[in-house]
Amino acid sequence: MRPELNRVRMICFAPAIPLGVSDALNELSTPVLWADLDVLDRNLATMARRWPGTSLRPHVKAHKTTELARRQMAMGHIAFTCATPREVIGMAAAGLGDDLLLANQTVDHTRLRAMADADARVTVAVDSAATVDAAAEGGIGEVLIDIRVGFRCGCTVDEAGPLADRARARGMTVRGVMGYEGHAMGVTDEVERTRVTEEAMNTLAAAHDAVGGDVVSGGGTGTWTVNSFVNELQAGSYVLMDTTYAEQRLPFEQGLFVEATIVSVAQRYVVCDAGLKALGMDHGLPQVLQAEDIVYCSDEHTVFTPAAPMNVGDRVRLVPAHIDPTMAKHRELVIVEGGSVVDHWSIDLRHW
Amino acid sequence: MRPELNRVRMICFAPAIPLGVSDALNELSTPVLWADLDVLDRNLATMARRWPGTSLRPHVKAHKTTELARRQMAMGHIAFTCATPREVIGMAAAGLGDDLLLANQTVDHTRLRAMADADARVTVAVDSAATVDAAAEGGIGEVLIDIRVGFRCGCTVDEAGPLADRARARGMTVRGVMGYEGHAMGVTDEVERTRVTEEAMNTLAAAHDAVGGDVVSGGGTGTWTVNSFVNELQAGSYVLMDTTYAEQRLPFEQGLFVEATIVSVAQRYVVCDAGLKALGMDHGLPQVLQAEDIVYCSDEHTVFTPAAPMNVGDRVRLVPAHIDPTMAKHRELVIVEGGSVVDHWSIDLRHW
Repeated sequence: MRPELNRVRMICFAPAIPLGVSDALNELSTPVLWADLDVLDRNLATMARRWPGTSLRPHVKAHKTTELARRQMAMGHIAFTCATPREVIGMAAAGLGDDLLLANQTVDHTRLRAMADADARVTVAVDSAATVDAAAEGGIGEVLIDIRVGFRCGCTVDEAGPLADRARARGMTVRGVMGYEGHAMGVTDEVERTRVTEEAMNTLAAAHDAVGGDVVSGGGTGTWTVNSFVNELQAGSYVLMDTTYAEQRLPFEQGLFVEATIVSVAQRYVVCDAGLKALGMDHGLPQVLQAEDIVYCSDEHTVFTPAAPMNVGDRVRLVPAHIDPTMAKHRELVIVEGGSVVDHWSIDLRHW
Repeated sequence: MRPELNRVRMICFAPAIPLGVSDALNELSTPVLWADLDVLDRNLATMARRWPGTSLRPHVKAHKTTELARRQMAMGHIAFTCATPREVIGMAAAGLGDDLLLANQTVDHTRLRAMADADARVTVAVDSAATVDAAAEGGIGEVLIDIRVGFRCGCTVDEAGPLADRARARGMTVRGVMGYEGHAMGVTDEVERTRVTEEAMNTLAAAHDAVGGDVVSGGGTGTWTVNSFVNELQAGSYVLMDTTYAEQRLPFEQGLFVEATIVSVAQRYVVCDAGLKALGMDHGLPQVLQAEDIVYCSDEHTVFTPAAPMNVGDRVRLVPAHIDPTMAKHRELVIVEGGSVVDHWSIDLRHW
């Protein structure tokens, strides 16, 4: 198992998987989602050195866990990015509502009203007359104009100024602009990633000139060093990483794992009890630390050829390909520190 | 939109999406997972004609919903297949424990004991000395020998007899054999699917000769007409179907949908508020009834080119590619009948 561990460590650019952790986890039924608290804290510290305080607006969609957000807040990041109204409302209810941004559009009056009524400072992204009007009618006081910088939602540069005017005319404060260069995140080559990011940020800069305001929000884990334009980075995945981001060899370590048990052994492969219902599959198959090759995942199983002979009952460790949807599939995150299970965090911001 | 609806209907081999359903669903926040009760009942009836009573052992992993299982039981199917101990225990707690099969292996003593203590008749699949011994030590009274017929778990034919002997020696009743021809389910060509199934069932027959017992369990929605060997079919997906199974042009209709709202409109595409956290992605992208082409899914969004111009606030309907993991991502299933929302079913057998 040792050579296999080393192979994965090289791929992941990650430090040693703590020895003894398996023992601590062996008492728990599988599949179990767990995080290495030491890795988490190192990742938080690495990010906070480059993006301290409110220059980082951590994206809670990556983990959907108020306990983890609380740890980010303890590092000085009091402003957060949310993907859903439920995340906003849950963060507010947990006392983490100093400055919450819904970085997506909604025209859902019930949810806009609930966010407006939450005990929090709430800012909502808008990119059309319809979303501006819905926000105003829902009682939202502050907005960002979302600019389409090459990925998904957002208005054009030409539309940005008039939309800001419309928002101000409806009595809302326009705090500035946001633009998410999502198409840059997956670019493995750093030179190309930098070029794509700069192109996107030139668009955002032009829109900011038209809109005004103090906030220029965007970016993510993949552009944390190459985006030098935004004044708040919306990074999420850096907290615990996944195998997709690991390909970029960022200095963040993998700290999120699914522990599973071998339940069946055939001549050429083995089967463990964690499958695609426990893993985000949109970025592909997980890694299995003890595997030579993954054959496939089915609902409740992963089938793989082991690097060394394995027996029924052996524990194995999977590394998800994509952190965000993996977290969203589990009720709780088991927290491991120094080889011991020290806590269970509820993944309490799931669903809609 | 009409031609597009027709196109999807052709692909799906499904009847009309009920008119007026959108109105009933417009009151609900999106994304919302919903089922057409009329379609569900027709699918249940179609299956029950070919596999009545206990000749069908419906697989609850497809829906993880005791209310839906209750409807299957009302059709006369009192025996169920489960993928996880949690499904077994939840079915028992809901009073649906007449005859529950855990069709997977486990060596988890806590969970085996919980199943043995449940108010239910519980049978567990075993395929190794370790799983036989674990079942016996957990207090399980009845087992099936799981035979590897070409897919995932199971023992060989040669191992089957000795394993049955071992189980009997440990005081357990061996009810028979199971063998799941999962590798046949996705074969689109029916002739080839029949050939693959027969090959698998020849293996299962040989094992049954060695094991004995009344039960020969296997099969699924994809082999519901071509598997003539098993005496109980473990079909699950037939209840509400998905786009992957639709390719086989079975007489079951699509009845599971995710309703979403357009939140952003760009020149060449639109964005709706249901993404890969709301959809099983292992079989690929969903269909969107109003789409010309799907561009991609991200965490909370699907981006597509619409068949006709769309506006922010318009509702759209997605058809999941894979029912099982889609159901597992939602807390509840909204039930629509005759154009009205008539119920909300808790998807209460999720997690582990």
